[in-house]
Amino acid sequence: MFLSYHKSARVASVSHDSPLRQTPRTTLRRKPARGSHDRALAYSILDEALHCSVGFVVDQQPYVVPTVFARWDDRLILHGAPASRMLKTAATGAPACVTVTLVDGLVLARSAMHHSLNYRSVVVLGSLFEITSADEKIEAFRRVVEHVVPGRSRACRPPSEKELAATRVLALPIDEASVKVRAGDPLDDEADLGSEWWAGVVPLVLCALPPVADRSHPPPIDAPPALHTYRRDRSRDP
Amino acid sequence: MFLSYHKSARVASVSHDSPLRQTPRTTLRRKPARGSHDRALAYSILDEALHCSVGFVVDQQPYVVPTVFARWDDRLILHGAPASRMLKTAATGAPACVTVTLVDGLVLARSAMHHSLNYRSVVVLGSLFEITSADEKIEAFRRVVEHVVPGRSRACRPPSEKELAATRVLALPIDEASVKVRAGDPLDDEADLGSEWWAGVVPLVLCALPPVADRSHPPPIDAPPALHTYRRDRSRDP
Repeated sequence: MFLSYHKSARVASVSHDSPLRQTPRTTLRRKPARGSHDRALAYSILDEALHCSVGFVVDQQPYVVPTVFARWDDRLILHGAPASRMLKTAATGAPACVTVTLVDGLVLARSAMHHSLNYRSVVVLGSLFEITSADEKIEAFRRVVEHVVPGRSRACRPPSEKELAATRVLALPIDEASVKVRAGDPLDDEADLGSEWWAGVVPLVLCALPPVADRSHPPPIDAPPALHTYRRDRSRDP
Repeated sequence: MFLSYHKSARVASVSHDSPLRQTPRTTLRRKPARGSHDRALAYSILDEALHCSVGFVVDQQPYVVPTVFARWDDRLILHGAPASRMLKTAATGAPACVTVTLVDGLVLARSAMHHSLNYRSVVVLGSLFEITSADEKIEAFRRVVEHVVPGRSRACRPPSEKELAATRVLALPIDEASVKVRAGDPLDDEADLGSEWWAGVVPLVLCALPPVADRSHPPPIDAPPALHTYRRDRSRDP
């Protein structure tokens, strides 16, 4: 028996206008002008990114593991197999860090020293907690699928009870967090501005190629039209 | 006075055929068939990625910080300001983790459960050590610039002695490490194969847009032609 997705009535407990919590741990010391605790900006970056990097510690050794995620109001949702070392560790409430990075361009300065990347990143610190109620797990699942492809949760089979039971879902409050952004032109030293080198930016964007139907088991219908125009950077001009 | 780049005679101490070191910490427990300890595969992923995520621990709290890097033979090179918390922590020889992730596509299965991403990732564990010799720092710098844009180190001003002194360079041996790759079609349950849903992959690729010259200080020459055809995924067909 398959469960239908539950339209959660959960209301965001934190307004988009409420800043991220700035602590000594989330205060940028290097190039603080690039830092921000703007929640709406953090959300826009989190919503554009496809995957995050989860940091956790086992026996003093840090691990950084990439995984898909979703934002559900003021929480990040992670999921996976109950046997996953990352999720097992995180489920104990151990300190974790979830970082998301979007690379927007190559910054080519006149000096090697001032070469850089344009990027937007969000770092969220805290302890994850497990979501165990079936309704919330279903909604978390739906959020993850919708995060990857908006509308997709209505165009595939929802999870069964067995699948839900075989999946651990964790949430991390988006609270103690910071945003860092570098954008725009290279910033060369005054003395280099008259030099003969080319300087500027090569913008980068994640592009989707046309969808490729399952080759082992061709599906009976064409790919949904929206997949032909798939893009993550909804804020940029086409 | 500017230093010229040093053509290092350093010879790779580890052959491309030599596997990455598999330990209990770098043995994949989840979906081991997606794991590998193939050094050449790891190098291809590291060389394609623009940035890495560095994991380190301060007061039991893990941090994951994105940064640009380069591969110099069998070492990863990180650099930054000496005051950087990440580099200060790493320079003490504390355990670190450097993870690189390339997202290659959206995997849209018939079931929500089997949705996934196609990706290639490398996780390197170990302790970083500081590179202090001027010659090696210059070469490390050159590698980072070349990692971002091949040929660029000859088309910009090399670092000055002062700039070098103001930069900390760290290296991490590519030794205890693992690769994880997911590629290809969705893997649906047998019972779902006859369902009405579309299933397949939306390939993703990092695209470069035409270079944009420094708007504040227009350079005296046109952008090098290679910047108009910039791409990271050299292994894929154009």
